[in-house]
Amino acid sequence: MNFPARQKKLRQHLASARLDGLLVSHLPNIRYLCGFTGSAGSLLLDEAGSVFFTDVRYDTQAHEEVKGAKVVVAKKAVLQAVAEWLKKRQRRARGWRLGLEAEHFTLADKKRLSDLLPAAIRLKEAPALVEKDRMIKDADELERICAAVNLGATLFDQALKVLKPGVKESEVAAAMGYTAREQGAEEMSFPTIIASGARSALPHGRASQQPIQSGAFVVCDFGVILEGYCSDQTRTVWVGAATHDARQAYEAVLEAQLTAIKAVRPGATVGEVDEAARKVLRRRGLGRYFTHSTGHGVGLEIHESPRVARGQKELLEPGMVITIEPGVYFPGKWGVRIEDMVAVTANGCEVLTPTSKDFTAV
Amino acid sequence: MNFPARQKKLRQHLASARLDGLLVSHLPNIRYLCGFTGSAGSLLLDEAGSVFFTDVRYDTQAHEEVKGAKVVVAKKAVLQAVAEWLKKRQRRARGWRLGLEAEHFTLADKKRLSDLLPAAIRLKEAPALVEKDRMIKDADELERICAAVNLGATLFDQALKVLKPGVKESEVAAAMGYTAREQGAEEMSFPTIIASGARSALPHGRASQQPIQSGAFVVCDFGVILEGYCSDQTRTVWVGAATHDARQAYEAVLEAQLTAIKAVRPGATVGEVDEAARKVLRRRGLGRYFTHSTGHGVGLEIHESPRVARGQKELLEPGMVITIEPGVYFPGKWGVRIEDMVAVTANGCEVLTPTSKDFTAV
Repeated sequence: MNFPARQKKLRQHLASARLDGLLVSHLPNIRYLCGFTGSAGSLLLDEAGSVFFTDVRYDTQAHEEVKGAKVVVAKKAVLQAVAEWLKKRQRRARGWRLGLEAEHFTLADKKRLSDLLPAAIRLKEAPALVEKDRMIKDADELERICAAVNLGATLFDQALKVLKPGVKESEVAAAMGYTAREQGAEEMSFPTIIASGARSALPHGRASQQPIQSGAFVVCDFGVILEGYCSDQTRTVWVGAATHDARQAYEAVLEAQLTAIKAVRPGATVGEVDEAARKVLRRRGLGRYFTHSTGHGVGLEIHESPRVARGQKELLEPGMVITIEPGVYFPGKWGVRIEDMVAVTANGCEVLTPTSKDFTAV
Repeated sequence: MNFPARQKKLRQHLASARLDGLLVSHLPNIRYLCGFTGSAGSLLLDEAGSVFFTDVRYDTQAHEEVKGAKVVVAKKAVLQAVAEWLKKRQRRARGWRLGLEAEHFTLADKKRLSDLLPAAIRLKEAPALVEKDRMIKDADELERICAAVNLGATLFDQALKVLKPGVKESEVAAAMGYTAREQGAEEMSFPTIIASGARSALPHGRASQQPIQSGAFVVCDFGVILEGYCSDQTRTVWVGAATHDARQAYEAVLEAQLTAIKAVRPGATVGEVDEAARKVLRRRGLGRYFTHSTGHGVGLEIHESPRVARGQKELLEPGMVITIEPGVYFPGKWGVRIEDMVAVTANGCEVLTPTSKDFTAV
């Protein structure tokens, strides 16, 4: 990972954002910029260089992991160490403008920092500068993402081995989690969704103690984190003898998903991709059962920019990695969702998820 | 769970905080107050009642789960729905004071909300009112916490079955995760720490692909979430034939832990509990190797108030549940930590964690 190059790029954004420095507090942004993987710290970046502040728990780890930044271990609170550093370095700089990541920095932390700093340093709300850079994955990142996606996909093969009527949803999730960790995943990228029976109509139905029943779909939505990067995938299987309704709904969602994937190319807006999926389902009379957006970026976080949602104007660019995951949900009955991760290429996109999308009954 | 009683108690705090209403945005606080377990929503609480706002993904789930509040499903963003609701209801109220949870609300969301609201509604930074109430667990909560702690403890028995030289740290963590989910845990309360060899000197060394080696400790720090409530426990075992040094360090940490537990009683400050552990280790010449604080509250979150740390003045009260987890860490060599959860009672405390703390070599 070329951390100095990322920091350099960010430094170039500071001037146009009218900032003299940026305090990066969002942990995935910190990991992206300097490699720190712990749970407490702040990265201060300005013209003079980068300083990473953490607490005593991460002394050894920070010195091992952090690249392209000096490491300072705070004796007390991290923000206090940041303030002391700034006071020493910037004491003669009137109107020195320090950006705070507005999407992450809390009101309370701003007050704390403001109370600790001299009036000469002005705190400014900074836009999501690092997130914007993170949308475009570099070659190192794409490699890690592919590795995570491929590991993640093996969990579904594992799920199919145990998924049958009478087995608890949680047992399926447990088997998948075991396989993930055994193969080296750091953790699951989110709590595994194994939603069977009427629960499959809940778009976010985490695995419960409910035994899997025949006569409905099971939505399996899962992912891993491997070397920091997330995978995200959904497959939906029918349990028992498939009904005509079930096949029709499945085919409609699959057509919507494939159509949206075809719409993914540089220069298209994410809103157009969302609309491509929505249009198919509307034509099939299912528009109002597709209750969420079509997808989202994936990388160091399971949900990151861009949002692939209705009306969004963000332009797709090569190197972006997004999910395409339309679904339809009939409350009290069942639901279907099909999700792949795709990487935007020079001419279109590459589907990263290797798993078959054929209608499957178990 | 008596959600209306909790909301009533919070309502009583509003006047003393000089607020007309509070917008609760921190998800564990929302779960505590109205039972919602999803990942997006805001609870607006004022004299007139409580309204829970969520997005379309959680329509069914919110209607099933939320108690003591009206449910509004936002057509667009949750904050927009909140603003529209307030505009309709509070349009004639000049200087109506809406509290935002300052420890959680971001600068960007405050700006968004502020732009959507009429000037008559004033946004105020509210202290951690809900967290303060959450420190004292009620009988329902203590029951759930005990269930989580007991389930969590069985994972260590599982770990001991697989933990031996040559087995990867991640395999131990995988086996524990499987057992947790099989038994109905929603998820692990944090990524399992299985830190062997020199990695045991990293207080936060997540399970890696490293095979377990003889001649060092393995720190096992783990917990589950069961029905929303977290467990947190650490046991440290030696691998191979124990050295004199290892036994001495272990005994010192155990004495510090037992001494701190003895100091837990209503009316003591959390700082005194921290100092009790620290004093034992100082006397043994190990003070500077105890690099973190002694503990923290546990409940709906793995880390919540109070912080059991140096100099903290919070008074212990019956119903508080905290960890007691001193440790010593020798960088490059190994580390030891022993952690139980304890509940403050009328006269002292009850140790909830049932696992033996005898020195163990595998």
